[in-house]
Amino acid sequence: MPNRSALHQENLEKIFNPSSVAVIGANTKKGTVPFDILYSILSGEFNGLILPVSPGKKHIAGIKAFKYVTDIDDPIDLGVIVFPSTVANLALEQCGQKGVKSVIIISAGFREVGEKGAEREKQLLEIAGKYGISFIGPNCLGLINTDPAVRLNASFARQMPAAGNIGFLSQSGALCTAVLDYAHAKGIGFSKFVSFGNKADISEIDLLYYLMRDEKTRVILLYLEEVTDGRALMQAARDIREQSGKPVLAIKSGRTQEGASAAASHTGSLAGSDDICEAAFEQAGIIRCEHIEEMFNIATAFAYAPIPESNRVAIITNAGGPGVLTTDAAVRQGLQLARFSEETTKALKKALPNTANIQNPVDVIGDATADRYEAAMEAAFRDENVDGVFVILTPQSMTDIDAIALQVVEAAKKFNKPVYTSFMGETDVASGIRILQQNNIPHYILPESMAKAFSTTCHFGQLLRRKAGKTDGATPASGRLKATAILQHAAEEGFNYLQEYEAVELLKEYGLPAPEGALATSEEEAARLVQTAGFPVVMKIQSRDVMHKVDVGGVVLNIQTEAEARAAYQAIMSSVSAKLPEARIQGVYVARQIPEGEEVILGLKRDPAFGPVILFGLGGIFVEIYKDVSLRVAPLTREEAMDMVRKIKAYPLLAGARGRRPRDVGSIVDAILRLSQLAMAHPEIRELDINPLIVRDEGEGCFAADVKILIK
Amino acid sequence: MPNRSALHQENLEKIFNPSSVAVIGANTKKGTVPFDILYSILSGEFNGLILPVSPGKKHIAGIKAFKYVTDIDDPIDLGVIVFPSTVANLALEQCGQKGVKSVIIISAGFREVGEKGAEREKQLLEIAGKYGISFIGPNCLGLINTDPAVRLNASFARQMPAAGNIGFLSQSGALCTAVLDYAHAKGIGFSKFVSFGNKADISEIDLLYYLMRDEKTRVILLYLEEVTDGRALMQAARDIREQSGKPVLAIKSGRTQEGASAAASHTGSLAGSDDICEAAFEQAGIIRCEHIEEMFNIATAFAYAPIPESNRVAIITNAGGPGVLTTDAAVRQGLQLARFSEETTKALKKALPNTANIQNPVDVIGDATADRYEAAMEAAFRDENVDGVFVILTPQSMTDIDAIALQVVEAAKKFNKPVYTSFMGETDVASGIRILQQNNIPHYILPESMAKAFSTTCHFGQLLRRKAGKTDGATPASGRLKATAILQHAAEEGFNYLQEYEAVELLKEYGLPAPEGALATSEEEAARLVQTAGFPVVMKIQSRDVMHKVDVGGVVLNIQTEAEARAAYQAIMSSVSAKLPEARIQGVYVARQIPEGEEVILGLKRDPAFGPVILFGLGGIFVEIYKDVSLRVAPLTREEAMDMVRKIKAYPLLAGARGRRPRDVGSIVDAILRLSQLAMAHPEIRELDINPLIVRDEGEGCFAADVKILIK
Repeated sequence: MPNRSALHQENLEKIFNPSSVAVIGANTKKGTVPFDILYSILSGEFNGLILPVSPGKKHIAGIKAFKYVTDIDDPIDLGVIVFPSTVANLALEQCGQKGVKSVIIISAGFREVGEKGAEREKQLLEIAGKYGISFIGPNCLGLINTDPAVRLNASFARQMPAAGNIGFLSQSGALCTAVLDYAHAKGIGFSKFVSFGNKADISEIDLLYYLMRDEKTRVILLYLEEVTDGRALMQAARDIREQSGKPVLAIKSGRTQEGASAAASHTGSLAGSDDICEAAFEQAGIIRCEHIEEMFNIATAFAYAPIPESNRVAIITNAGGPGVLTTDAAVRQGLQLARFSEETTKALKKALPNTANIQNPVDVIGDATADRYEAAMEAAFRDENVDGVFVILTPQSMTDIDAIALQVVEAAKKFNKPVYTSFMGETDVASGIRILQQNNIPHYILPESMAKAFSTTCHFGQLLRRKAGKTDGATPASGRLKATAILQHAAEEGFNYLQEYEAVELLKEYGLPAPEGALATSEEEAARLVQTAGFPVVMKIQSRDVMHKVDVGGVVLNIQTEAEARAAYQAIMSSVSAKLPEARIQGVYVARQIPEGEEVILGLKRDPAFGPVILFGLGGIFVEIYKDVSLRVAPLTREEAMDMVRKIKAYPLLAGARGRRPRDVGSIVDAILRLSQLAMAHPEIRELDINPLIVRDEGEGCFAADVKILIK
Repeated sequence: MPNRSALHQENLEKIFNPSSVAVIGANTKKGTVPFDILYSILSGEFNGLILPVSPGKKHIAGIKAFKYVTDIDDPIDLGVIVFPSTVANLALEQCGQKGVKSVIIISAGFREVGEKGAEREKQLLEIAGKYGISFIGPNCLGLINTDPAVRLNASFARQMPAAGNIGFLSQSGALCTAVLDYAHAKGIGFSKFVSFGNKADISEIDLLYYLMRDEKTRVILLYLEEVTDGRALMQAARDIREQSGKPVLAIKSGRTQEGASAAASHTGSLAGSDDICEAAFEQAGIIRCEHIEEMFNIATAFAYAPIPESNRVAIITNAGGPGVLTTDAAVRQGLQLARFSEETTKALKKALPNTANIQNPVDVIGDATADRYEAAMEAAFRDENVDGVFVILTPQSMTDIDAIALQVVEAAKKFNKPVYTSFMGETDVASGIRILQQNNIPHYILPESMAKAFSTTCHFGQLLRRKAGKTDGATPASGRLKATAILQHAAEEGFNYLQEYEAVELLKEYGLPAPEGALATSEEEAARLVQTAGFPVVMKIQSRDVMHKVDVGGVVLNIQTEAEARAAYQAIMSSVSAKLPEARIQGVYVARQIPEGEEVILGLKRDPAFGPVILFGLGGIFVEIYKDVSLRVAPLTREEAMDMVRKIKAYPLLAGARGRRPRDVGSIVDAILRLSQLAMAHPEIRELDINPLIVRDEGEGCFAADVKILIK
C-alpha cells in the first residue's frame, strides 16, 4: 500500500502535533494505564485541549468526560485508545465516524497473545483502511513530543524527558522506561520519543521518514526486535542520510539467535540471519549498536558536537596513565594521534611548565589548573592537523574541576571541531560532569567509548561526503527470458534444484563465466564434444536423482584424449546404473577443465527480511575455518561489489601479495554484479553457490568450476 | 636478590600494620603533599602513634613535631618520607640509623625525571641495602589499610575507602584517585590499597605475595604500566591461585604500542610484545581487563559471590526485551541457558500467572511484584541444572523495586550459588541498586558485563580445579654440550645466525625432526651423500656471505638421480662464484626432500619481560593473512603444548576435518616441547623459525623443512 505511506506521513503530523487529544477509555483509577496516560498528558502541560472519553465517568482528574467519541463537538486531532483489546475496534470505528484520522492504540492483547489477538489486529487494520485512519501500536507505551509548542506526553512515562535533538523509536515498551531513566540521569534530552509496539499500521519506516523531516531531530535512534522489511529500512536510512544528513543508530536484539535449519548450500550456512543484518546495516550506513549505553555514547557525539573532518585527535590529560589508556583506545578504534605543527609545539612549550609533555598526548601535569587546559585546548584546536580533541581529567588535589569543565565549554563554542571529555571518577568529578552535560559537551566514562564514538562519527562523515553509486543496469531481455525458461522447466519437472548443465547455461545468459561444455547423451556425442571443449576435460553425470555425483562414480576429471573420454563415458554410465539402477539419467556433462587459479566462492541467498544477499569469500577449506566472507544485499553498485572483494582478509592473496602475480580482481567484480542482476531478475532462485569460482591471473578472467542452484 | 624478597615480606608486615608512623618532611601548608599525608593518617583515625618530623615546625596539626627521625625516642614501625627528592636519601639514612626497616617514599623526582633522578634512586637502594630497609616507591601516592584494627590512610586520598575484600595495587598514582572515587560511588570496599610508583625496591611481585597471605583480601587487582619481570609475575599468579585460591586481575596499559623495529624472523614479526603479554597472562591464569570498569565488574563477582560450578545460567526478568538482550550476551560470552528440570517447570507454573514465560529466560511479566521474583529465584536456585541466576528488572508502574532487591539479598544468603543483578535505568532504580550494593550482590548496568563476569569466574573455577602439569624434563647433557659448541663456533666467527647445516644439527641434538642431510664440500661427496639421504634430494649453498640462497642460484630442488646431483653441485658452485666472487663457501648442504604434508610454523622469540616465547601456527601464506598463531612462555607442560596446537582456528585441518586424514598432531606436541627445552638451555638463541615444519599423516611424524636460527 504505497499510498498508505503517504497518508501516514500526513496523519503523523497530527499524531505528533495535535491541538486536541481524546483519551478513549480513560478512567479514574490511579496506577492503571487508562488513568496514567490521561494524567501524563495533563501533568506534562499539554498545549491543547484534553478530552477524556469514558463510558461510566462524568469527569476524570477534574476534566469533563464524554461517553462516546462521537459525543464530542470539538474537532479531535488525535485519539489515544486505552480500552481493553476486546472493545478497541469499536473505539476505532467511532474515531472513524467522528473523523479522527490520527490514533495511538496503547491497548495490549493483539498479535502478541496469539491467534485471537491477531484476528482483532486485522479488524483494526480494516477499520483504519475504511476511514483513512493511521495508527501507532497496538501494544505500545505511546509517544512523547517535547517541542515547547506542543508538550505532549501521551505515554505512561512518569516524567516528561528534557527537550533535546535525539529522536528515539522503540519496539520494546519495557526498554523505553529504562532508557528514559538512563537519559534523565545523564541529562540527555529528546525531540520525539515513540514506542511503536506491534507496528500493525504505522511502522518504524514511516516513523523514520517522519523524523527525517522533523526539524527538532538531529539524530535518530531505533530499537528493533524484528526486521520486517529490511530493504525498506535500508532505503529509509539512505534517504535520511542523503536528504537530511541525519545518522540512524539501531539496536537489533536477537543477535545470537539463528534459524537452526540445516542449510542446503555453503552460502546458506555461511550467511546467518544476523550476519546478513550486520552487513545490511553497514551497507545502508545504519550504525549498529550493541547496547543502550553504546547507543547513547554515540548519539550524544552526533547530537552535541560537529562531525569531524578526519580521524586525527589530540589528547590533553593531567595524568600519564589515563593518557596511555586513551592513546591505546584511540589506536584500537582506528584513530590517529595528530602530529602537531611547529606552531602548536611552540605555543604549548610557552604555556606549559618544563615537566609537561608537549607532544601528543599532551600531559599538562597533575597540578594543572584551568588555565593550562585552556592554553592546551587553544593550541590543539588551532592546529590544522587536529580534527578533534579529547580532554581527560583525573581529580588531584590541585585540580579545579568545575573551572576546567567551563573552559571546555568555552573552547567548544569558539571552534567548529569536536571536543569530547572524560572526567575520571564519580563523586569528586560529578559537578564538573554536570557542567559538561548541561552545556552539551559529550562526556564518557571510558576512553574506549570516547574513541569509538569519535571513529563512528568520523566514518559517518565519510559516508556523507561520498556520492552514492548507481546499481548496475539490467540484463538484455533475451537472456532473462531464456533463464526464466530454464528455471520454469526445472520447476515443472518438480525439482528444487537445477542440473549442472542447466545451471551453467543460466549463468552464461547473465554473462557469468563458466567453462565451455555441453550435455552428451551417448559415447559418440561425448567424443565429439571433447574436441570442441578442448583438453583437459571433465565429465559429470547429469541426473535429477543423483545429489552427490562423486559418491556414485559420476565424475571423471583430467581427461586428456578422445579415447579417455569414451572410456570415461562408459565408466560413469555403468557405475551410476550399478549403484542407482532407478536413476533417470539425462546424460553426461562434458566441459573443459578450468586451468589453475585462486579458488573463491560466490553465492546468493534469499533472506526473509532483506531479500537477495550476495556472498563472496575465499574458497576451499579456508572459508569454513576462517569464515572470511563478505555479504551485501542486492542490487549492488560497482563500488559496493569492489568493496566486497576488498573487505575479505585474504584480499592480499588476490591483489598479489608476497611477489605473487595479481589475480583478475576486475573479473570477480563483474561476476558479482552479474550475480546481483540475476538475483534481482529471478526471485525463484532460493540459493546459489559458485564454489569454486577459479580466478586466473590479471586479464585472464575467472570461471565457475562448480555451480549449484536451488529453486523454490 | 632472593633474600631481599624474604626481607620485604617481613618488612611489609609493618608497612601495612604499624603501631607508629613517622611522617618525615611534614609541614603545615594545607593542599601540599607533606601536610595532606599527615592529615590523611590523622583524619583516617589511625589506631597508633603519629610522629611528624619537620626541620622547621614544632607542631603540625596539633601534634608535636621532631626535628630529626633520630630525635624520636619511641620505636618507629613505619617511616613515610615526603621530603623533596634531593634530601630523601638523607631522610632514609636517618631511618636506617634509627632502626626503621619499613618505609614508604612518596617523594617524586627520581627515575621518572631522567638521569639525575635515576642516580638518586640508586642511592636510595644502596642505603636500603645497608640497613636492611624495605621501601615502597618512590614517586607514589602511598597506601591504605582499611583493617579496623589498623585504619591506616598513609596516602593523599581525601577519604578512606570502605573496608572490603579487594586488594588493589597500582603503578599509576593518578589512576588511584579515579579508582577510589569510582569505588566510593559504587559502594565497593578495599582491604589494602597501594600505589607503588617507581617500584625501585618493593615491587608488585612482593606486594602480590603479601596479599596472597593477607586474610582480609579475597581478590587482587593490579594496574601495571610496565612488566619488568614477566616470569616472576606469572609465577606469583600461579602460586597465589594454587596456595590461596585468589584470582589476580590485571590491567596492563600500552596495549597498542609496539617496538617498530623490523623483525628478522617470522616469529619475531608475528609475536608482538602485547601479544606475548596477552598470552603470558592467559597462561598464568591472570585475568586481563581492558579498563577499570571491567576490572571492578569482574572483581565484585569474585569478591561478593561464590564461584560457579559451571556455566549454566537461569535468567529471570520482568520484560521481554531485556531478557533477549541478556540471553544474547550470555551466549556471546559462552554461557549456556540452563534447561530446567521438570520439577522447576512445575514450580514456576504454579507460582507465576499464565501469561508468564516459565522457560528460561523466565519472564515474570511487567506487573510482577517481589513475591513472583522470590518464587522464580527459589525454583531456579533449587534446580541442579542451574549454576547461577541473573535477575533483571526494568522499572514499571507496579514494580516494587526495593522489595525485589531485598528478595535477591535473601535468596543469595539461602543458596550457595551466585546471583548477579541488573536493575535497568538510573534514577528510579537507584535505591534498589543501593540495597544490592550494601548487601554485596553483584550489580551490572549492562547484560554484557554481567555475562562476562560470570564466564570469567567460571573459567577461573576450572583453573582452580585443574591440577598443574609438570614441565618436561631436560635434554641429555651430551646433546646440550654439542648444541652449545655449535652456537659458540658461530658466535666466534662473528656471525649472528647459523648456517642451515649447523641449525639442522642443533635441532637434531634436541630430537627435533629434520631431514637427513649433511654438508658436501666436493662433487664426489655430494654424489655419495645423495645415496644415503635417499631421493628426491634438495641441495643448498652454505656460505656465511650468502643471505638469500635462491637469488644467487644457490638452491636446486627435486634431484632424482646421482647424475642430477653432480650437475646440481656444479651448477650451484659456478652460479654462486659468478654472482658473489668474494663469498667464502663452506659447501653444499645435501638433504632428503621432505614429502608432502601440512605446513605449519614453529618458532621461538626472546621477550625482554617474559623471556623465551614459543610460537605455533599454520604455515604458508595464511599465517600472514589470518595471523592464526598461538603463543606460550617456555618452559611448557605437555598440556600447554597440546593447548597451543588446539588453540589455532585451523586445528580442524590438522585433526582431520571434512574427510581429510588426520595429521600427526602428537609429533607437533613433541616438537613444541623439545623447542621449549632448547629455548631454556640456550639463552644465546635470540630467534628461531622452523618454517615450514611439514606435518605428515598420523604416525608419520613431522619434519623441519627450513630452519633459521638467530643468535645474540
